[in-house]
Order: sequence, then structure tokens, then C-alpha cells
Amino acid sequence: MAKQIRLGIVGVGNMGTSHLSNIRNGNCPEITVTAVADIRPERFERVAGPDITCFDSSKAMLDSGLVDAVLVATPHYDHPALAIECMKHGIHVMVEKPSGVYTKQVREMNEVAKNCDVVFGLMFNQRTDHIYRKMKEIVDSGEMGRIRRVCWIITDWYRPQVYYDSGAWRATWSGEGGGVLLNQCPHNLDLLQWICGLPVKVDTKMHFGKWHDIEVEDDVTTYMEFPNGATGTFITTTGDTPGSNRFEITFDGGKLVSENGELILWKLEQFEPEFSRVNKEPFGSPAFTKTVLQTDGKSEQHTGILNAFAGAILRDEPLIAEGVEGINGLMLSNAMHLSAWTDGPVSLPFDEELFYLELVKRIKSSRNKTNVTDIVVDISGSY
Amino acid sequence: MAKQIRLGIVGVGNMGTSHLSNIRNGNCPEITVTAVADIRPERFERVAGPDITCFDSSKAMLDSGLVDAVLVATPHYDHPALAIECMKHGIHVMVEKPSGVYTKQVREMNEVAKNCDVVFGLMFNQRTDHIYRKMKEIVDSGEMGRIRRVCWIITDWYRPQVYYDSGAWRATWSGEGGGVLLNQCPHNLDLLQWICGLPVKVDTKMHFGKWHDIEVEDDVTTYMEFPNGATGTFITTTGDTPGSNRFEITFDGGKLVSENGELILWKLEQFEPEFSRVNKEPFGSPAFTKTVLQTDGKSEQHTGILNAFAGAILRDEPLIAEGVEGINGLMLSNAMHLSAWTDGPVSLPFDEELFYLELVKRIKSSRNKTNVTDIVVDISGSY
Repeated sequence: MAKQIRLGIVGVGNMGTSHLSNIRNGNCPEITVTAVADIRPERFERVAGPDITCFDSSKAMLDSGLVDAVLVATPHYDHPALAIECMKHGIHVMVEKPSGVYTKQVREMNEVAKNCDVVFGLMFNQRTDHIYRKMKEIVDSGEMGRIRRVCWIITDWYRPQVYYDSGAWRATWSGEGGGVLLNQCPHNLDLLQWICGLPVKVDTKMHFGKWHDIEVEDDVTTYMEFPNGATGTFITTTGDTPGSNRFEITFDGGKLVSENGELILWKLEQFEPEFSRVNKEPFGSPAFTKTVLQTDGKSEQHTGILNAFAGAILRDEPLIAEGVEGINGLMLSNAMHLSAWTDGPVSLPFDEELFYLELVKRIKSSRNKTNVTDIVVDISGSY
Repeated sequence: MAKQIRLGIVGVGNMGTSHLSNIRNGNCPEITVTAVADIRPERFERVAGPDITCFDSSKAMLDSGLVDAVLVATPHYDHPALAIECMKHGIHVMVEKPSGVYTKQVREMNEVAKNCDVVFGLMFNQRTDHIYRKMKEIVDSGEMGRIRRVCWIITDWYRPQVYYDSGAWRATWSGEGGGVLLNQCPHNLDLLQWICGLPVKVDTKMHFGKWHDIEVEDDVTTYMEFPNGATGTFITTTGDTPGSNRFEITFDGGKLVSENGELILWKLEQFEPEFSRVNKEPFGSPAFTKTVLQTDGKSEQHTGILNAFAGAILRDEPLIAEGVEGINGLMLSNAMHLSAWTDGPVSLPFDEELFYLELVKRIKSSRNKTNVTDIVVDISGSY
């Protein structure tokens, strides 16, 4: 294995182009992009360079011998099939979020991964965020005790209508398989399960094309229950501006709130159940300390994910997000859709076949978008 | 009519005693307490004074000719019947929250009120809060446009077990008719409807005795829909400590958030629907200003309510909360219970007969609490 990974990128739309620039800018010293593949050759012009070979099919790129690893940055439906193709070629693969659109295809990908000796990672770059890392550290440490309540208002994913008009696949059942849950929230759903664990039940109220001229959801309110009886709320939309990003976790031992780039911990001197058992004051409450937490301030985002990917390939170092973990957030997303479609609560694990049939119904009646333009824009800072 | 209202207080438990102290401390110069009534004469000792006559029945007090007005501070179930008794005696009446336990009895009270020439007010003292008044002013002004989303996390009603053990009526279906929604949240439910209007639909997840040894609810998560299509979330509990009180309203024109005693307004330069229609940038969003709002800082609470009550009686001035408005928050509360009991969404107006039957079922199986003490404590600052 060479000291530099030769990376191919499949799909050079917004995300693929952004990754290419990032690597070209020298942020990933162990990676060099040697090839790209896209079914739209008109896109090659803007990625052209002396060291990059362009292919109009992923298969041709995988067969070329020019790449050790591939980054999949196509529309969501194709992620699992392309990842499987890479794995079967013995090529390492990093998949953009979400891992797929429905869990059936992702399970298949994970099965193949088990039997292939390649590194398989997912682009959950928000796991590198210093605030979310600190939150996970606190939860995992056990110092705050059992989680009782989770409330994440994550409404700062605003998208104007022109965003949806910028690609024929966007915000359609056939092209994207969902809206804010499939495109914007995979990060948040992954973080939610990464930090708090997977719920066992969701009850979701979903509104489709409420704030935009689209057929998929752009407004979601979910109630959740966790295995230990904790409850939660997850509220998201691409319609609010300026939206909020407030993530609150309540524990037996206090409260943790992330908002406005700040993480605050309220830590009880005595866990609530114990206090309630011994306290004699009808309006008493346990004493606590409130601390604005210091973090290491580092949020390496895509760069961090890609450098860990290179480290995993070259030196067997840990990934930031293992590919097989991608199914967790997607299960949550699928369960939310199924809850909305069946108009009632859904327990996890849910009926994946039913989800798929319901999705296919919507794909069949999906409208064809006209008057769209293939715009590739600078999206730095938008994910 | 004299220049001072002669007030009788029915029920001198925690709230009645607190009102008495407040008036005795000279905060309500136009009110003098001339009588109290309570079915527990052992309570009279602590309210005794040369100018106060104690009655062991409300009827005797109303017949005594000693009172022009009455403040009803008994357990909730008795509020409507006592108010009606006052009205029929031609005596003005101020009722503690909630207006009653079920809307049927409150409708009857409101009917009687219509045909009696007395002042009828409700102790919604939180309507005097400078932050909530400012929120209502902003919503009512229309400057922010249509409401799109409401999210109120109001979990700072912590009560330890001993609170529930401090009275036999507390937190029982037979004595109180509900938990956090009936005892703590009447304020918030009133404010919610006062500021944002009444929802047309609720879907509520409720947990009974989750954090305490009680039979009623102490954990509630509600999803709401409003007549204009706006959605909302209302989350409350008496189990979290330190809890949160974060009230967010999103508009076409921006966002308003109350938390930590601060009210912040994000005001868009262009309303979102108009921006989205004309904007050409896929990741664009409307410009806004963020302002920490100044308020008049005044929160007169119970004193404000009582002084307005005196003003209404003496000079026909407006009340802070008209008695007949009490039914709105209670409708919301009843609808939430009905949703939880029937395990599905409930539209407003709901089936009040069904609610009543379901409530009666629970009253019949309500347990008798033993080992309770009649504690009266200083509750200043707890409401």
C-alpha cells in the first residue's frame, strides 16, 4: 500500500465537488484524488485537472486500477449499490450520508461489508463536532446517570424554493426518497442515536410540501420512547428561518443543553430519585452547579472523516463512523416516515417490508420535475 | 359600594393563606379580608386576626353579609360550584386556577356568570408577567406575521414526593382530577391560548406516576395543530430538576424565544414566503436583526390580579383575566387527557361527555391516600 490513498469520487455534484476542493486544498495529505466518475460528462469540465481521470461510469473507474478507495457522493438511492460494487472490487469506500434510502438495501450493503476486507466508512462529519463529542463523552461516562428526556429542536436547515428547483432528483420520492429527514437530518439522526441510543418507538407528525413546492416532507415533529422509558422530541424543518438548534438531554443527575455553540451542564449534588426519596421540603429541589463546559474546540468535519479514513486504510486506525452504523439513523428516519404514513406510532425494529412497499407506492406516483437547472454551488458551511 | 372591598377567602390551605398574607401585607389597598371559610376549622388558628371572622362553611360566609367578594382557593373540583354560589348571592368572585376539572362544570359556571351582575375573574397571575405580556403584544401586533410553530418546554415545575404526600386530595383522580396539567400547568395552558390561540387538535403522550408515587400524570408531551396549520409542542413534567422554561414561537417574519428571563426577537427583513419566492441563491436565507427585547419589567402576579379585581368592582376597570376565559386552558388540558386516555389525536371541540365518563371511571378507582399530613407551607415564588 502506498503512503497516499488514490481516491476516486463517484458523483461530482455539490458534495462531490466540495470534497474534491477540500482534498485539493491540501487538507488531506494522505489522499490524492486520481479519478472521478459521473453520468453527466458535462460536469467534468469543472473538476478537470492533469492528475484526474474522468469516467462516465463508476464501473469503468473501479476497473481502471487508478483508485484504492472511493468516495460515494451520488444521490441517496445509489449509495448502497455503489458501495457494494466497490467492496466487491476490494476497494475501500466512504459513503456520503444517508447510507441509503431504505433499510433493506442498507442491510444488504452491511452484509457484503462483513465479508469483504475493505475499510467502509460513512460521512457523518458532525460526529467530529466538539460539542457533540463532548455530549457523547458525558452521556457515556455515566456521571449524569440515566437519561430521562431528550429534546432536539433542529430547525436550522432552512432551504428556499430555488434549492429544491436546483436538481431534478431533489425532494422527490423517486429521486431522493424523502425530504428533510433524508437530506438534511441524517447527521442529526445519527448523532441522536450515537449519543442517546436508538429509540424503541416513534410517533411522527409529518407535513409534506408545507413550506415549499415539493412532494416530500419539510416539517416533522416526532415523539420518541427509549428502551429505559426515557421520552424524547425531535423537531425539524427546512421552512424556518432563522431556525434553532437546541439539543437538551435531561438525566437523573441534571441537564445538558447545547445551543448557540455553547454547551451547558447543570449537575445535581444528589440524583433526583434519591433526593425525592429523602427530602422533607414540599417545595424543595436538589442543589446543583451550572457550568459552561470547555471543549477542545476542534471540529474537523469532512477533513477529519477523510483523514481517519486514510488512517484506517494505511494504519488500521479507527474510523470516526463505521459504515455499518449508518443503518441506525436510517432506521429512525424510516420509522418516522412509516409512522406518518400509517398515522400512528411505530415500534423499532419496524416492518421493513411494509416501509418499502409504502415507499414504492410514492415512487410510482412521484412527479417529474421540469424546469430544473443542474446548479452546483459552493456549499461550504451549509452542512 | 365602599372604597374597600370586603373579601372572603374560601379555603385557607397553601394558596388561600398565601393570598391572605399578601393582602395583609398591604399590597392590595382596596381590599380587606373580613372573613375566611374552610371545612377544616383547625386551620383557623393560623389565619386568626381581630378583623377576620371564620366560617366552617362557605354558605354561612356568603349569608353573613360580611363580604362583597370572595376568593375561591379550594381544591379544583369545588371551584365552579363555589363560584356559582357566590354569583347567585350577588357576590363578586375571583377563582383560583384551574377554573374547574372538567369543562362541563365550567360551562355551567360561565352560563350563570352571564346572567349575574357580578365581577368574575380568574387567578391567571402569570398573565401579568412582563415577558408573557410582551410576547402577546408582539403576536397581536401582527408585525411578525402568521405563527408557524410553537414549542414550549415547560419542565421547571419540579415537585418532590413529599409535596404529593402533603395533602390527601393532591395528585389523585378523585381529589384533584389530574396532575401536572391540572395543578401546575393551568397557567401555561392559559398563556398558550392567550398568546397563540387555541389549537384545533392535540396528540398527547402522557405518563402517570412516572417520577412519583402518584396516580395522575407527571410527564406530558403534546403535539398540537392550530387553525392556520401551525404546529406546536408542549412538554411538561414535575419530575425534571432543574427543569427548563423555553417558549419559542416561529413566524413568517422570524422567531421569538423566551428563556432564562430573557426575550429575544429575530426579525426578518423580508417575510420567509416572499423571500423564498424571489430569492435565487440555493443556500440563501433572509437577512434578520436579533434583539434582546426591553420590557417594562413589571410582573405584579397575584397582587396585580387582585388589584385589577378591586378596580373592576369599584370602577368598572378591566380584569386581567375574565372568569369566562378560564375554560380555554381547561379545554386544552381536558383534550390532552382525552388524547392520552383514548391513545390517539383529539380534535377541539372534543367530546366533553366522553371526557367526563373517562374521568369518572378514574375517580371510581382512585386510591385513598393514607399517611398524609395537612402541611401548609410558604409557597412564595413557587407559582
